[in-house]
Amino acid sequence: MDPGRVLTSLFVLFAAAYVGAYVAQRFRQPTVIGEILAGALVGPHLLGWVREVESLRTFSEIGVIVLLFYVGLGTTIRDMLRVGRHSLAVAVLGVALPMAAGVGLMHSLGYPAGVAYFMGAALVATSVGITARVLLDVGQARSRAGQVILGAAVIDDILGLLVLAVVAGLATRSFSRVHIAITLAQAVAFTVFVTLIGRHVVHRFSVHIGSFRVRSPEFVVAMAVCLGLSALAASIGLAALVGAFLAGLVFSETREVEQIRTRVEPVYDLMVPLFFATMGSLVDLRVFLRPETLWLALLITLLAIATKFVGCGLAALPLGRRDALVIGVGMIPRGEVGLVIALVGLRLKVITPDLYGIVVVMCLLTTLLAPPLLWRMLTRRGRAEEAAPGRLAPFAAQDSREIASSEHEISPGDIQDDA
Amino acid sequence: MDPGRVLTSLFVLFAAAYVGAYVAQRFRQPTVIGEILAGALVGPHLLGWVREVESLRTFSEIGVIVLLFYVGLGTTIRDMLRVGRHSLAVAVLGVALPMAAGVGLMHSLGYPAGVAYFMGAALVATSVGITARVLLDVGQARSRAGQVILGAAVIDDILGLLVLAVVAGLATRSFSRVHIAITLAQAVAFTVFVTLIGRHVVHRFSVHIGSFRVRSPEFVVAMAVCLGLSALAASIGLAALVGAFLAGLVFSETREVEQIRTRVEPVYDLMVPLFFATMGSLVDLRVFLRPETLWLALLITLLAIATKFVGCGLAALPLGRRDALVIGVGMIPRGEVGLVIALVGLRLKVITPDLYGIVVVMCLLTTLLAPPLLWRMLTRRGRAEEAAPGRLAPFAAQDSREIASSEHEISPGDIQDDA
Repeated sequence: MDPGRVLTSLFVLFAAAYVGAYVAQRFRQPTVIGEILAGALVGPHLLGWVREVESLRTFSEIGVIVLLFYVGLGTTIRDMLRVGRHSLAVAVLGVALPMAAGVGLMHSLGYPAGVAYFMGAALVATSVGITARVLLDVGQARSRAGQVILGAAVIDDILGLLVLAVVAGLATRSFSRVHIAITLAQAVAFTVFVTLIGRHVVHRFSVHIGSFRVRSPEFVVAMAVCLGLSALAASIGLAALVGAFLAGLVFSETREVEQIRTRVEPVYDLMVPLFFATMGSLVDLRVFLRPETLWLALLITLLAIATKFVGCGLAALPLGRRDALVIGVGMIPRGEVGLVIALVGLRLKVITPDLYGIVVVMCLLTTLLAPPLLWRMLTRRGRAEEAAPGRLAPFAAQDSREIASSEHEISPGDIQDDA
Repeated sequence: MDPGRVLTSLFVLFAAAYVGAYVAQRFRQPTVIGEILAGALVGPHLLGWVREVESLRTFSEIGVIVLLFYVGLGTTIRDMLRVGRHSLAVAVLGVALPMAAGVGLMHSLGYPAGVAYFMGAALVATSVGITARVLLDVGQARSRAGQVILGAAVIDDILGLLVLAVVAGLATRSFSRVHIAITLAQAVAFTVFVTLIGRHVVHRFSVHIGSFRVRSPEFVVAMAVCLGLSALAASIGLAALVGAFLAGLVFSETREVEQIRTRVEPVYDLMVPLFFATMGSLVDLRVFLRPETLWLALLITLLAIATKFVGCGLAALPLGRRDALVIGVGMIPRGEVGLVIALVGLRLKVITPDLYGIVVVMCLLTTLLAPPLLWRMLTRRGRAEEAAPGRLAPFAAQDSREIASSEHEISPGDIQDDA
């Protein structure tokens, strides 16, 4: 590891992320898409300015943890419980439909049952990072649709874990109800314990935080809890970002939440764009050059999009058509959990490298599709709701709202109120 | 790379760093020593709670860059130039004496000339990270002695680079005046350009920063410059932290410096303790178990301490005995540059793995020795100067001063003034 090269890669990715975000803003696209595409451009597969992606991986993956922690800080447990019923329905239908359709498709194409189950399982879990980012960027992470999506993503991740336990058990013929029951119990216990009991623990503990003589004890304790719960979630097989989100929830109702948010912001500004640019730099567009895998990849991607959209949208219909649309689209992106399931299948030699590549393409396309769609729906909706005389052009209006909401968080008044 | 294990290691190191800092505070020792020892305790060589040190290395090494950037932000170019003459004298004597003594010792012990030159070169460069940290912790980074140390560390690093070019050239018999002239020209041009011209460029550019629509454009631009200059410094063979320090200097005279400092602080609180804990976790105390290398290691360490202290102290004597003592002790720690030189010698097969291990021990011991000595000198001095009726116990007084100075930076008044 050459420190000069690693630092150069880090610098190039960081600069590219913000240049990409700037260009995306100019073209009225979501900034996160600009960050991903800029990362792909400077990455090893295109320009090659960034070569040390592996050394940066840990660093950038903290980015998605910080993102979900930040989103969690802005979400209250009360709001989440209020929409809990809807989240559960969205998660269950959004898991069942893609799974069934994926298994059916692979089966009808003549693949053996093991392959069909693994590919179906890989379509199951939503990766909420990019949706959370767009919701945050348009200031709607606390909207009802946003809350339903965030809650559904947590439940969905637990269901994905169960599906993995079942299909891996079937594939290795070590299927056991006990193992699956333990997996479920661990995941549910983790979520319930953190959500319901964690805040009381934190509340109790927070009186003692002041005796800890560092610059910002609340921030240090919150970051330690965030890293600890992320590590715990990852250790029991959940996505690390679920732990980070729950850690944010726990602190969202403390008195110190605004101080913590203000201090997390610079860490966010440093790491989150870097995360998306690093993810972009991993994209190898050459997978699209081989027609035989390309067609299957596109077919599976369409299936992944349609089934998630329909499943989640239907489940969310009681909330009205608009919210159902936003929830359907917001749940489309797949990511690390799908890749992990495919990787387990690859290691068990149930699925081939080609099929693994197809899952990668599916994750990539679903991730790239959702932000522009969501962006358009949410900003049009925002315009309609907030229509007022003297408004600037649509984009400028959106933008000024963004700036206003972010400035709110660091306004001197807030800090004085806390002090 | 298992994400659960990497995150667990990250969490354990972060928590250990702050617990170590807390315990060190209780025992009235510098917090940085607590962080290093806590890291060693949980690291792979003792408790083994942290195993994935390699994956965390890039992440934690950003810590020392952030540290020096933060120190640079608090230092003005004017102050640095004012003490420039002293810094130059301290750097030159502090390089010449250890080099001469190291070569002499190895020669008298019967080692060949190549080995003697490499070992002498490995004793040359001060690693200013830990001294900067202690100066910052006691609020004396802007004192005259602090400024001389920081300036000398930059010059010292350039001299170390030249020494490396010469001894590596001699060892490979590719010694060329042209190569050495280029090395010198690059390093000096980099430093002069950044210090003298960089601030004008930044000043020019800063009017346009506002048009960049992100939460905190100043912070983003400053971090990009910091990463870019660190990468550039590392690419031309200087220590990355020299680039970070110069980047901080460049922004230290801008109008936005307080906003940037406030935003860098949380990044500092996240990464700097993690850096020192990670460094601690790399320490393998078993090197001390082999008596034959232990004696040579202790001899070389004593030589490294004595020659740096005498060389720098003598050069700083015109500043008075107190400052000369502080400067002599503050320049003792060796680090990455010494290790890099020893590594080059190892790769060229000039020095043996045993001798490399000795350089590691020397870096470790000099780094651990300086903070307690500095801490004692600076806090006693602080007490003497600030003696006032109604003061609390020495440590409490020290501590309240620390808190006051750090609170100053985030006080609502400051933010309002900036807004």
